[in-house]
Amino acid sequence: MIRTGIYGATGYTGFELIHILRRHPEVSVVFATSKSYAGARLSHVFPVPWDLPLVAEADADPGAVEAVFCCLPHGAAMQTVVTARQTGAKVVDLSADFRLRDATVYQQWYGLEHAAPGLLPGAVYGLPEVHRREIEQADLVANPGCYPTSILLALYPLLRAGLVADGPIIADSKSGVSGAGRKPSLKTHFVEANENFSPYNIGRAHRHLPEMAQEITRLGGRGEALIFSPHLTPVDRGILSTIYVPVSPAETLHTLHNIFNETYADEPFIWLLPEGQLATMAHAVRTNLCALSLTLVEPGQLIVCSAIDNLVKGAAGQAVQNFNLMFGLEETLGLADL
Amino acid sequence: MIRTGIYGATGYTGFELIHILRRHPEVSVVFATSKSYAGARLSHVFPVPWDLPLVAEADADPGAVEAVFCCLPHGAAMQTVVTARQTGAKVVDLSADFRLRDATVYQQWYGLEHAAPGLLPGAVYGLPEVHRREIEQADLVANPGCYPTSILLALYPLLRAGLVADGPIIADSKSGVSGAGRKPSLKTHFVEANENFSPYNIGRAHRHLPEMAQEITRLGGRGEALIFSPHLTPVDRGILSTIYVPVSPAETLHTLHNIFNETYADEPFIWLLPEGQLATMAHAVRTNLCALSLTLVEPGQLIVCSAIDNLVKGAAGQAVQNFNLMFGLEETLGLADL
Amino acid sequence: MIRTGIYGATGYTGFELIHILRRHPEVSVVFATSKSYAGARLSHVFPVPWDLPLVAEADADPGAVEAVFCCLPHGAAMQTVVTARQTGAKVVDLSADFRLRDATVYQQWYGLEHAAPGLLPGAVYGLPEVHRREIEQADLVANPGCYPTSILLALYPLLRAGLVADGPIIADSKSGVSGAGRKPSLKTHFVEANENFSPYNIGRAHRHLPEMAQEITRLGGRGEALIFSPHLTPVDRGILSTIYVPVSPAETLHTLHNIFNETYADEPFIWLLPEGQLATMAHAVRTNLCALSLTLVEPGQLIVCSAIDNLVKGAAGQAVQNFNLMFGLEETLGLADL
Amino acid sequence: MIRTGIYGATGYTGFELIHILRRHPEVSVVFATSKSYAGARLSHVFPVPWDLPLVAEADADPGAVEAVFCCLPHGAAMQTVVTARQTGAKVVDLSADFRLRDATVYQQWYGLEHAAPGLLPGAVYGLPEVHRREIEQADLVANPGCYPTSILLALYPLLRAGLVADGPIIADSKSGVSGAGRKPSLKTHFVEANENFSPYNIGRAHRHLPEMAQEITRLGGRGEALIFSPHLTPVDRGILSTIYVPVSPAETLHTLHNIFNETYADEPFIWLLPEGQLATMAHAVRTNLCALSLTLVEPGQLIVCSAIDNLVKGAAGQAVQNFNLMFGLEETLGLADL
Repeated sequence: MIRTGIYGATGYTGFELIHILRRHPEVSVVFATSKSYAGARLSHVFPVPWDLPLVAEADADPGAVEAVFCCLPHGAAMQTVVTARQTGAKVVDLSADFRLRDATVYQQWYGLEHAAPGLLPGAVYGLPEVHRREIEQADLVANPGCYPTSILLALYPLLRAGLVADGPIIADSKSGVSGAGRKPSLKTHFVEANENFSPYNIGRAHRHLPEMAQEITRLGGRGEALIFSPHLTPVDRGILSTIYVPVSPAETLHTLHNIFNETYADEPFIWLLPEGQLATMAHAVRTNLCALSLTLVEPGQLIVCSAIDNLVKGAAGQAVQNFNLMFGLEETLGLADL
Repeated sequence: MIRTGIYGATGYTGFELIHILRRHPEVSVVFATSKSYAGARLSHVFPVPWDLPLVAEADADPGAVEAVFCCLPHGAAMQTVVTARQTGAKVVDLSADFRLRDATVYQQWYGLEHAAPGLLPGAVYGLPEVHRREIEQADLVANPGCYPTSILLALYPLLRAGLVADGPIIADSKSGVSGAGRKPSLKTHFVEANENFSPYNIGRAHRHLPEMAQEITRLGGRGEALIFSPHLTPVDRGILSTIYVPVSPAETLHTLHNIFNETYADEPFIWLLPEGQLATMAHAVRTNLCALSLTLVEPGQLIVCSAIDNLVKGAAGQAVQNFNLMFGLEETLGLADL
Repeated sequence: MIRTGIYGATGYTGFELIHILRRHPEVSVVFATSKSYAGARLSHVFPVPWDLPLVAEADADPGAVEAVFCCLPHGAAMQTVVTARQTGAKVVDLSADFRLRDATVYQQWYGLEHAAPGLLPGAVYGLPEVHRREIEQADLVANPGCYPTSILLALYPLLRAGLVADGPIIADSKSGVSGAGRKPSLKTHFVEANENFSPYNIGRAHRHLPEMAQEITRLGGRGEALIFSPHLTPVDRGILSTIYVPVSPAETLHTLHNIFNETYADEPFIWLLPEGQLATMAHAVRTNLCALSLTLVEPGQLIVCSAIDNLVKGAAGQAVQNFNLMFGLEETLGLADL
Repeated sequence: MIRTGIYGATGYTGFELIHILRRHPEVSVVFATSKSYAGARLSHVFPVPWDLPLVAEADADPGAVEAVFCCLPHGAAMQTVVTARQTGAKVVDLSADFRLRDATVYQQWYGLEHAAPGLLPGAVYGLPEVHRREIEQADLVANPGCYPTSILLALYPLLRAGLVADGPIIADSKSGVSGAGRKPSLKTHFVEANENFSPYNIGRAHRHLPEMAQEITRLGGRGEALIFSPHLTPVDRGILSTIYVPVSPAETLHTLHNIFNETYADEPFIWLLPEGQLATMAHAVRTNLCALSLTLVEPGQLIVCSAIDNLVKGAAGQAVQNFNLMFGLEETLGLADL
């Protein structure tokens, strides 16, 4: 049993993580912190009968655990990660604090000076389908954003094969409301979000853009080609990204399908739909799957639909997948039968 | 054109009122106040293109209007109503502050000393189907609560005919989330309210109980027999009350139906459904109607289903209905074609 | 591994059952039948990647299995159960066909002559918290209806203790739309059900009434006292029953709470909430739990709120719980970590 | 009062039309037909108290009316329109049957030979903001599809100014479920559509594509550049189209905004949002407005968000707007205060 601590257990991501870890056969949760609910039990915060005690961060001892999941907001995560790493615990950080390799870019997008730039070179971007080998060796994994997970997994086979052509890559993404967190706001008030559908931060304004651009460029593409438009959808959970990619006009739907098939042949959490089917949120919600479908509009114009659960493959599930890799466990442990 | 002022224009009730008054042929809105949005225009607060300026309460002159709609929260309304009445304006108060005739009961339920007990004897409980004559003469009308509107209109024909028998009257009510107001909270957060269904303040704990008890007793019933269980339902608007009433066992469904029919024969906003049909929220939402259906379980045991829109017949629509009566206008003006 | 067959695998109940059995360590699914989708695979019918083949009922061999789950509609289930029993397979029938001990009552409510009245005496009503010992010995278990599960578990401690007083017992129940099945209809069309809330078959008109009356009477109560009002709620899944029970006026909230506590002390799937909390759908959805809360309105007047997931504790989860008991397995196998 | 007949009154579009016409001061509804509900009254089909009788099409006399609204499905509309025109009635046809000027294209997309190609040259595409003068003179107006309305109004100012550059125009559209009609289907079953989000017929597969291509080309653009991806969203009504348009790189957000402003300066139903705001469904639902917002990603790359109510500006509201123009009435009659 791997002794594990959770920072930020009472947001939706932290709660989903606890939900997953309860089924994980190799994990014991040693502590779970909460700023708002320290001293209470989890059953006071969520409608579940689990008696997990919640402690203040100051009362959690990272030295007592081998693994830390950090579900704190960006900015707040940095120092906690530093402390945990100093005790020797391996860390999966679900915030944005260690995703960008360049501290300047971080400061530019998040408006904060990075407190631990020295950790950035060693932090691995935790997309197992792309960086599995590095994750297995890592002590610090930066869990990708939810939108980036859905979009990068859709682009990876094309980038890897060098098939992305010139022109803008347009990712039109739709997310459930849990992606906005648990803190009440007018935007997430039931009466405002229900029976509505809203774009926000579209174009190149959303903070998930730079990590996608970084990864696209690392994979040989042009990160600056990406246009990204998130929208709020009145569902609890799920992301569907409809991604318009210019590709080499020599490819047919069939050859493109084969490329995806080969790239993801052994991936337990990629579900490439048969030709003719389209990925929907329902294909992925409450699983760690990324469901993908391909539609070739005309030679050179591909649409990839990519569906994940923002809280699972887009956050807590992928964090556990990374954890499994970091500790040499079966990658699907705790994740196969959500 | 009757010059009108609105206090508290940027809650859901105030906004619904503006929506209705825009169509009212005899009303000009002279001012609309907002604590949170003073200085802005309505189009900054709601997704509507109406350029209505919002002012602070201090900048609104009740002396410049003939009629005031007060959509402030309970407690806050009292003093505003006093001031408005002093200038001579007629007032429809949508808060709870003038619904209870006994200031002691008010203090007991709302935890506040009443600031204007002298106005209570003159305040008329604004349920037109019950108190139309008094409303026509009134200078101050206390607009009923949303739940009480749905429940009292269901009970009135039975009380009036002296048909309510001994035993508890149980009102199991379900309300859309707009009934909880526009202020964000965890309870009304999309992810918490969606795909959920919650009882709250059930039994004899909800603040709408005393006004219902008061009115039942005034109509010759036993107010203390009422048990009232509100529930939160994941819809934007609407109330359905399922009301279990012990009645005289001599009555058949047919005679009971006739009694409702006679009581409400000329009522423009009561929709008694034919025998065999059941009232649903959809019968009433976005109208000023109260839809009623009767189900006789066995002799002596009646179920009345009563549906209204909590923001219309349960608040702003009924307020306009009262206003029309107070100013000698056609009662349905502005309300017929929602 | 217990060889198992599923009849009617492509309704919501059958699908939920497959979802649960995939995690069950002691079950192998030998066949799954579907009338509408015979010849297809499950992944063609639901957005899941599971390659389970679906066969026509004629192509399924009950002789090859030790256990049968029958998820067919009432009427259709009877003959299938007879056939399965003849091969020696133990059967959990999720339809209504074997819930009523009296074939005459069955015919009266379901409009069909019972095809196998000889099996009725041996069929056990599968509410483990009430009939665990009989279920362990049974070859045929009639899985209770979803509404009855929520209501009977709320009444059982009171009936057992002889505390139910005279007067009507009123169960006002609210169910998610999956309870109406997967066959499209106007009532379950998104635009009709969404943003609406509807009573149906209220009073004593719903087919779940006789099985509740039967069980209440068996437990020493007056089944004929029950009034039952189901309502359709715009959520996918979940039932909340708000139950108004006349009880002995000598009891306090505290003594009543103790009685529930004692009755359910060792029950793995009963979650009695602490005094002061109310059960909501969210307490139970996607679990096999029944969440219960008590509110004493005044001496003699109790409200029990009871929440279940209609597809889990109200159907497939309870079926697996019964199966576990029938085969001498740990009762919670496959059910603990939904 | 203009005597009017409605064919196909009991779909969502026909019902919305009746809802609007009830408030229209210059319209009397002489007949309303329904295939499924002939002989019934509207209050039996929808939860409204209106006693409008529904007749079979054979029992409706188009000779008795001056105006006909045809809300029949494509294919079924053609012959009815021919008959109505023969009696001299002016017709607004809400189906697709008269939108495409080329009968061959119609056959190709709708799989039917056109029954009245002779009427096509005289049929005017009923987008008032683009074709107002022709509509005023027309006897037959083909009311645009809902998606095309949202997309063409977003592109028109750019096309008119010759500012659309080379490259694909990508319209990623999201629609509420009422757009799929009232006939129950698995796709529109509550449990399937709720908590889901689904693309369908994306790329160049949806039947609304050819009418958009036709109009883009008529306005001087390249209709074949359009890529169109519709998605089903779990709301009752509303369309949001997020449209990615390559534009001349010389334009700034400000100059583009001015072009939209000038184009739509006097349009009563176009709501161009101020720079910095984004159009959402809520800006348009239950109004005849098209709300538009502009986002310039970088020089040359524009995003237009366009929101309408699919049943109002996307169907019945626009039909009444066209009717008003055809009969020389005030264009906003009956539409201003939805």
